[in-house]
Amino acid sequence: MASTILGRIPFDDERIAKDIARLASMPIPQEPYRVFTTGTWLNINLWNASGDHADGFWYGHEQRPGRPTPLLDEVPHLHEVLTTWFNPDRLTMVRGRNVVEFSIIPHRDFIEAGEVEQFFRVIILLEDNEHSVNSDEDMVFHMRAGEVWFLDAAQVHAAMNMSSRSRWSLCLDFAAGPGFQPADIFARPEFYDPSLRPTLVERKPAAPDLPERLRALSTVVSRHNIKDIAFLLGRIHLTEEVPIGASWDWLIDITRQSGDAELIDIAERAKKFFVLSREVNEDFTFLPR
Amino acid sequence: MASTILGRIPFDDERIAKDIARLASMPIPQEPYRVFTTGTWLNINLWNASGDHADGFWYGHEQRPGRPTPLLDEVPHLHEVLTTWFNPDRLTMVRGRNVVEFSIIPHRDFIEAGEVEQFFRVIILLEDNEHSVNSDEDMVFHMRAGEVWFLDAAQVHAAMNMSSRSRWSLCLDFAAGPGFQPADIFARPEFYDPSLRPTLVERKPAAPDLPERLRALSTVVSRHNIKDIAFLLGRIHLTEEVPIGASWDWLIDITRQSGDAELIDIAERAKKFFVLSREVNEDFTFLPR
Repeated sequence: MASTILGRIPFDDERIAKDIARLASMPIPQEPYRVFTTGTWLNINLWNASGDHADGFWYGHEQRPGRPTPLLDEVPHLHEVLTTWFNPDRLTMVRGRNVVEFSIIPHRDFIEAGEVEQFFRVIILLEDNEHSVNSDEDMVFHMRAGEVWFLDAAQVHAAMNMSSRSRWSLCLDFAAGPGFQPADIFARPEFYDPSLRPTLVERKPAAPDLPERLRALSTVVSRHNIKDIAFLLGRIHLTEEVPIGASWDWLIDITRQSGDAELIDIAERAKKFFVLSREVNEDFTFLPR
Repeated sequence: MASTILGRIPFDDERIAKDIARLASMPIPQEPYRVFTTGTWLNINLWNASGDHADGFWYGHEQRPGRPTPLLDEVPHLHEVLTTWFNPDRLTMVRGRNVVEFSIIPHRDFIEAGEVEQFFRVIILLEDNEHSVNSDEDMVFHMRAGEVWFLDAAQVHAAMNMSSRSRWSLCLDFAAGPGFQPADIFARPEFYDPSLRPTLVERKPAAPDLPERLRALSTVVSRHNIKDIAFLLGRIHLTEEVPIGASWDWLIDITRQSGDAELIDIAERAKKFFVLSREVNEDFTFLPR
């Protein structure tokens, strides 16, 4: 199923502003998934497998149950929303997340962890930000604060907040599996409202000369900028009508045109890691160690 | 005076490793100077004007004296080094700094704060990293762990660590002014040793077609990648023999060729902010707010 809105939480504006301010003052833990992102990408662990707020690891491959970390008590409105709106028996992880001057590269989640039907990921924005958009293989969309979004993270998907303004959200992970229905994430069946329509982002038609212009990057690409170029290419589908997966093929084309075997290898390994297959704890980097 | 080595601290490898591990586990405070950087750039405030470890602001324009923050006690070897090697009366700020997959754009420091002769900035790497280099208007150089480097931050300067490995350092700020001599930063005059020679980085001659290849970026530059392109250009002088300041002129040329007035304006404002003039607390961003 494609990404879709499952419900809408009526946040209390004043209380949510206080919780966001509290999140923004919390220590930032180690981040296991930075390689997927550029810019500010930080996660505050509110609910996870260990109950340890410093543990940002997603234990989907083991389907460990979740529990609150001590930080959840410090954000009372979010605490209330999580425990009254959602089914705690299925909730495995909750991250309070901020992204600024940020993009996440086109990628598929869960591919290291097993059958994608076991996992169900939900995003809820805590504040509106006009510069923040998400995408999957079908569309580019703008999440509004309070919307409970199923993000089909098993598809190739991406996002950006190309502004210097914060965009706090919650990322909720649920255990799914046989017989699971989206309504099962909620504490009460009436919270499920699949009638809500998303705000789609209109893109401009892809310019006919786009591939040729991008190919010019083959004369500029180097070990020091291949990461920048990979992320730059990964954002083009967010504003122009090109397939989300095209960026990986462009990157491989650009490196092939450059004739640099090391760059070709990085591009091919990157495509494999981000969209095809990877292992639990596999440690890809665009740059040397 | 150009950047130069002033002395060499014989760190205790085992004790420094413990202090680095402790720094790496500390909460990361708000970062006032992120706009100068891309990638991981974090500062742990060990000594500053307020004594508050969350305060990362450099109060050079007011020449406030410095004092330890509570975090200094948690890194005993660094505490000992700072207090036995340096003159506490001149020390205004000490930041424990990590940079990873990082570059800092060609820029001049202190231009918002008054006469550059009042300020004296010192960098000491806590660990070696072959991928980490610094530059000023004269040279590209490789700092080695323990070297006490005067960084002539009033010149245009830059740096990168284009690897996924950490590069912890200390950044020390001293009050200088009339009659100040570099040896004055030390607690004892014999610590000053200007005979130490730096490791210079050999660069390749600039390719004759470099300006033409970079100009191809004018067909790719957009609001969503101008920041990436600015940083990409800002790293070229670190590996090719071109003037450090060239990147700002390239960026302006590229945006002019693009014909996009908004991009030209961003490029011109960026050059002004980073190398020509700015106000205390001025808030430049490449991206919209």
